[in-house]
Amino acid sequence: MAPIRNARVLFNSIPAPNTYPEPGKTTVYDDSRTIDLETVPLDGGFLVKTLVFSIDPYMRGRMREPSAQDSYSPPFTLGEPLANFAVGLVVRSEHSAVKMGDHIYGFLPFQEYTVVPDPAHIRPDIFRILEAKEGVPWSAYVGVCGMAGSTAHHGWHEYAHAKPGETVFVTSAAGPVGGTVVQLAKADGLKVIASAGSDEKVSFVESLGADVVFNYKKEDTRTVLQREGGIDIYWDNVGGHILEAALDAAHNKARFIECGMISAYNGEPYGPKNLTHIISKELKINGFVVRNLYPKYRDQFYKEIPPMVASGQVKYMEDRSYGLESVGEAIVSVQKGTNKGKKVVIVTENK
Amino acid sequence: MAPIRNARVLFNSIPAPNTYPEPGKTTVYDDSRTIDLETVPLDGGFLVKTLVFSIDPYMRGRMREPSAQDSYSPPFTLGEPLANFAVGLVVRSEHSAVKMGDHIYGFLPFQEYTVVPDPAHIRPDIFRILEAKEGVPWSAYVGVCGMAGSTAHHGWHEYAHAKPGETVFVTSAAGPVGGTVVQLAKADGLKVIASAGSDEKVSFVESLGADVVFNYKKEDTRTVLQREGGIDIYWDNVGGHILEAALDAAHNKARFIECGMISAYNGEPYGPKNLTHIISKELKINGFVVRNLYPKYRDQFYKEIPPMVASGQVKYMEDRSYGLESVGEAIVSVQKGTNKGKKVVIVTENK
Repeated sequence: MAPIRNARVLFNSIPAPNTYPEPGKTTVYDDSRTIDLETVPLDGGFLVKTLVFSIDPYMRGRMREPSAQDSYSPPFTLGEPLANFAVGLVVRSEHSAVKMGDHIYGFLPFQEYTVVPDPAHIRPDIFRILEAKEGVPWSAYVGVCGMAGSTAHHGWHEYAHAKPGETVFVTSAAGPVGGTVVQLAKADGLKVIASAGSDEKVSFVESLGADVVFNYKKEDTRTVLQREGGIDIYWDNVGGHILEAALDAAHNKARFIECGMISAYNGEPYGPKNLTHIISKELKINGFVVRNLYPKYRDQFYKEIPPMVASGQVKYMEDRSYGLESVGEAIVSVQKGTNKGKKVVIVTENK
Repeated sequence: MAPIRNARVLFNSIPAPNTYPEPGKTTVYDDSRTIDLETVPLDGGFLVKTLVFSIDPYMRGRMREPSAQDSYSPPFTLGEPLANFAVGLVVRSEHSAVKMGDHIYGFLPFQEYTVVPDPAHIRPDIFRILEAKEGVPWSAYVGVCGMAGSTAHHGWHEYAHAKPGETVFVTSAAGPVGGTVVQLAKADGLKVIASAGSDEKVSFVESLGADVVFNYKKEDTRTVLQREGGIDIYWDNVGGHILEAALDAAHNKARFIECGMISAYNGEPYGPKNLTHIISKELKINGFVVRNLYPKYRDQFYKEIPPMVASGQVKYMEDRSYGLESVGEAIVSVQKGTNKGKKVVIVTENK
């Protein structure tokens, strides 16, 4: 068989601090490479055809100087492909644990085909052969059944200490993390206040069962939280002014789950001025990175969530782009919030 | 016996937001009242002669409009005396649990003599008959053996999760809270970095055994913390820019114990812009109000700390003012940090 195209998306230049990445400049689609699927050496590993990539807000943080301050994720390497959570189909395998036709969930470079020379080279905390017996679409395994859903599930179980009748405020509630949190909170018997950035998103979040949903671009968050009588739990995906409003609205002994601060990723961060509430209200603020909770909650997650998604008990909204050419714009859209649901890039539907 | 003077210190007006209280205006010394110690009705309670008052930073927060936002302490009442932790001598008693000659620790109005009509009127979480068998001065029972020492002791035991070899950064380390934290941390085998606001205070903190002590007015906190390799625990008494520096210097999974934010009490608060560290470093931030920890730690505290103070194992520095006339200036001094050690007002040494 003749070599075929193996297109990639490269990390080409570092965006200036407090700016959005630029497709064509920061990230570049490159189709100059080819691969021969029958003869490419596997070195005891396996060959994967990528089906779908997850596009996540945290990726912006990896587009930085290698020398810049430590973060929970290493920086992307200039000139190399971006990488993220993906589902792929095993095309060939020399490894006993992985066979042709398996679908795998893993951390893959942004290219159409990847040789994983040895399963030791893939992160064991993420890598998983998907049985997919529930009949959920593959794209869901990079969203509500993947890292985003795990983030919601693990973080909620570890830090919410939720009691029925309490009130939680969830930001970015139409996203795959926030939307899942909304549903977990309702299942736990809480009152859910949720915000999103468009009327369409608001309608979706209402369909998830949230009690109070508002468009934060039209209604003032502080006003809504005050009118609703304050909050016991805050699920933070945004930081900045909204975090400040949540601090004002917090009840004594409220829990703040710090999951993301999208407001600080592409612009000058705003520092909330009312942190004295942390003391006077005896707040508990926990930041977390989901991978450190995998060992504790992962098996429970895969047992619980995919069946709930299959049955419709847990809903999600997905925003698909098609082809690796669309990755650059897809990355920008989750930074700007113009996506409508979990952003994924379908690399091929020919599976 | 003829009536004698019963001087008081009244809360006379609310200081403007972000300004210091003004002696003679915000707080007014008033010696117009008298009391007849032999005939004043006790209504089944007891009569206390105040010996010493504690002067604490948190008092500024009580000097506010009754309508202003909730806090952990109710506002002072305009026209009425201020109130705070004190040690007094029981002069007369009609109550079976309290006898003449007892020394009590409690929450008293700022006046020379007070009738406590019934012990039910005094806060049972604070009120205590002091046996004082250790021979520690009465003033110590409003400082290192009182609320300030409890704050350090209870907060450290509840939130530090200290492991030998870790590094803690303590601010306001010459104060009664910070100074006690320094000594508890050293006893637990930690490296202690400590800051204070004068060279004299620095010398005192060095005498407590801290490993690295600096004058934050002369040395940049961020630079010192970076040079020392970062921190695992931050004991925050100041907030603002110093909190921001501590967030930059925090190791993964560091614990932040939020005890006070003196920088935010009398000026426009500064909002740290680097709160994304909370997520990427998985920080645990706990604010606390000591009285809610009393039930858990109080007996342990009175068993452990006064003997350690008596033996010199726990040291403290005290800054005394004399007479209720000095209360206004004493309050300002702990807001500005011009006090040298735990601020107390000795009402009388005639005990």
